[in-house]
Amino acid sequence: ASYNLLLLPGDGIGPEVMAGVQTVLSALRETGIASFETETDLVGGAAIDRHGKPLADETLARAEAADAILLGAVGGPKWNGVAYDIRPEAGLLRLRKDLGLFANLRPAICYPALADASALKRELVEGLDIMIVRELTGGVYFGEPKEITVQADGSKRAVDTQVYTTGEIERIAHVAFDLARKRSGRVASAEKNNVMKSGVLWKEVVTAVHAEHYADVALEHVLADNCAMQLVRRPKQFDVLVTDNLFGDVLSDVAAMLTGSLGMLPSASLGATGEGGMRRALYEPVHGSAPDIAGADKANPIAMIGSLAMCLRYSFGLGEAADLLDGAITDTLAAGTRTADIAADGAGAVGTKAMAEAIAAA
Amino acid sequence: ASYNLLLLPGDGIGPEVMAGVQTVLSALRETGIASFETETDLVGGAAIDRHGKPLADETLARAEAADAILLGAVGGPKWNGVAYDIRPEAGLLRLRKDLGLFANLRPAICYPALADASALKRELVEGLDIMIVRELTGGVYFGEPKEITVQADGSKRAVDTQVYTTGEIERIAHVAFDLARKRSGRVASAEKNNVMKSGVLWKEVVTAVHAEHYADVALEHVLADNCAMQLVRRPKQFDVLVTDNLFGDVLSDVAAMLTGSLGMLPSASLGATGEGGMRRALYEPVHGSAPDIAGADKANPIAMIGSLAMCLRYSFGLGEAADLLDGAITDTLAAGTRTADIAADGAGAVGTKAMAEAIAAA
Ligand SMILES: CC(C)[C@H](C(=O)O)[C@@H](O)C(=O)O
Ligand SMILES: CC(C)[C@H](C(=O)O)[C@@H](O)C(=O)O
Repeated sequence: ASYNLLLLPGDGIGPEVMAGVQTVLSALRETGIASFETETDLVGGAAIDRHGKPLADETLARAEAADAILLGAVGGPKWNGVAYDIRPEAGLLRLRKDLGLFANLRPAICYPALADASALKRELVEGLDIMIVRELTGGVYFGEPKEITVQADGSKRAVDTQVYTTGEIERIAHVAFDLARKRSGRVASAEKNNVMKSGVLWKEVVTAVHAEHYADVALEHVLADNCAMQLVRRPKQFDVLVTDNLFGDVLSDVAAMLTGSLGMLPSASLGATGEGGMRRALYEPVHGSAPDIAGADKANPIAMIGSLAMCLRYSFGLGEAADLLDGAITDTLAAGTRTADIAADGAGAVGTKAMAEAIAAA
Repeated sequence: ASYNLLLLPGDGIGPEVMAGVQTVLSALRETGIASFETETDLVGGAAIDRHGKPLADETLARAEAADAILLGAVGGPKWNGVAYDIRPEAGLLRLRKDLGLFANLRPAICYPALADASALKRELVEGLDIMIVRELTGGVYFGEPKEITVQADGSKRAVDTQVYTTGEIERIAHVAFDLARKRSGRVASAEKNNVMKSGVLWKEVVTAVHAEHYADVALEHVLADNCAMQLVRRPKQFDVLVTDNLFGDVLSDVAAMLTGSLGMLPSASLGATGEGGMRRALYEPVHGSAPDIAGADKANPIAMIGSLAMCLRYSFGLGEAADLLDGAITDTLAAGTRTADIAADGAGAVGTKAMAEAIAAA
């Protein structure tokens, strides 16, 4: 089979880690598993500099036509002053929304070789393997009204609106329960039904989907604030954790940080499954654009390459190739190859390029 | 001077830890520092059982008349099934809103004797002393519309509204900057201006208040998701952390959990300063009602007694008495007295009553 990938390197370290994807794709092509065609385009600050906006219509059209999208990272201090609607992140948000990528999968895995890098005590994180399922196209990110108005006395009033419908909650619940079936069979659902009506509906709908379709899966409801606490206190109690867009943003970042492997965590953002079983999908590292080390061959490409592995698995059904790639990452780490962010003392660290080549070779 | 305190023990372990306050108040009366009169009333589930709602109007009137309010905890499984508007937490939310308690102060302090109880490595939390300043009467907790509507096709749509005005942000910013002046002179302000208009206004107003009145204080802006990460990675980088109601709910719980002393952390919720320098104020532990150990003389009363210390300090200007009480807590811990939640192996732990008596004696 031949697949068409749109690469959106973005800003900061984005282009460097995306180069790692190219290196790995070359190696994959040689294995004969599949053939990949790539196209590259601009997003984020890079697109603002060129087009005056963070996502050109022509780029969106390409994204719609691609079999999958790989994105590096967006943003940086250069664009910090720009207006809300043309900031680099707006390009990412538009991609998510316009492509209908409603299910954001963020694995938080603690690599044994890196457990000591966690802020948490080793025994609390060793073996940690959580899958956060974050709703990505609803909630306060996109609800209307979303505006700042000026009052008669010159003061301002800002409004954001969190909206969730039965349908939006149902489809993300299905994603979470289906994943749990392939994992340990446990789902925790986090909301704040004691304060938010969207939390009341969230709990109600997740409960109904569970009762109707997934009686074999264990379901637990947890308040989002308590969930954040429990992630710190005893993270291994969680397996699949499903939550809304905003809580998912915060909780997935906490979970990622726990692992001590922030530079290593991939993510997938999936749309509905269409005809032929294909679905729109975007894959990106959890880490940001790290402008402080951009261009210095210091970035860790593992999260980006791991995102390619998720792409093989979730978009193309190439589970074996994904396993091969994940195995190459594990082996490369086990052999002691480290970028500076994960080297015990910074000594003997390799660069972004060398890491990608080592993984490609493995 | 004589002060009038309204005690609202609430549910679960609330009545037991509130009994600890009575024990300490007796000891304080003997020192002659001040005289205190107390009144006790119902809130939360206890009030639902009696009045059919979590806060009776007559209780609210008493709260308005009191010099300060001490609250234990609300909620429990008994009331889990009840409707949104009459759940135990609604009583607490109404108290906050109707009394205008817009500034929630949550210290996250790591007691040296308890640093090993933290999930984090000791060196990351030893000496930790963060003051979280959470906006408490605005944002998504109270904005309208807040409703669930049924659509023509039978599906539902839930809406919550986050609203912030210039004035609301200004007054909480002042609280944070004023506190920072008495502490290390540093404020971090957390929002999501890359996604939320209320975050844009929050950042703008905090920046303006800083520029106009607090040039001597160091101000840093941080995105709320990154803030959650940083709290786990390197918590000691923060001193005063100011944020909105919902982010404050989650971030303050993360910070509290880091300390390893969840059962020990007090909080203050303050209103505007009125004539005579007095302000409405409610003091409560950060921990919940812990129904599993309710009535067993196992709860740790330190967070509740620490809340009384905050009351002496912030409501009555009795800084010395507050120091005395905080010192008594520290001394009691240093002498090895422990309730079960903080005893290294549960052995030799004392009960709620004995702990309160030890502190009163100290
Ligand atoms: C960049 C930003 C808009 C984004 C978000 O808030 O979703 C990021 O934090 C993420 O989690 O992918
Ligand atoms: C009980 C609940 C309504 C409350 C809140 O969300 O504010 C609690 O979590 C808190 O932080 O005091």
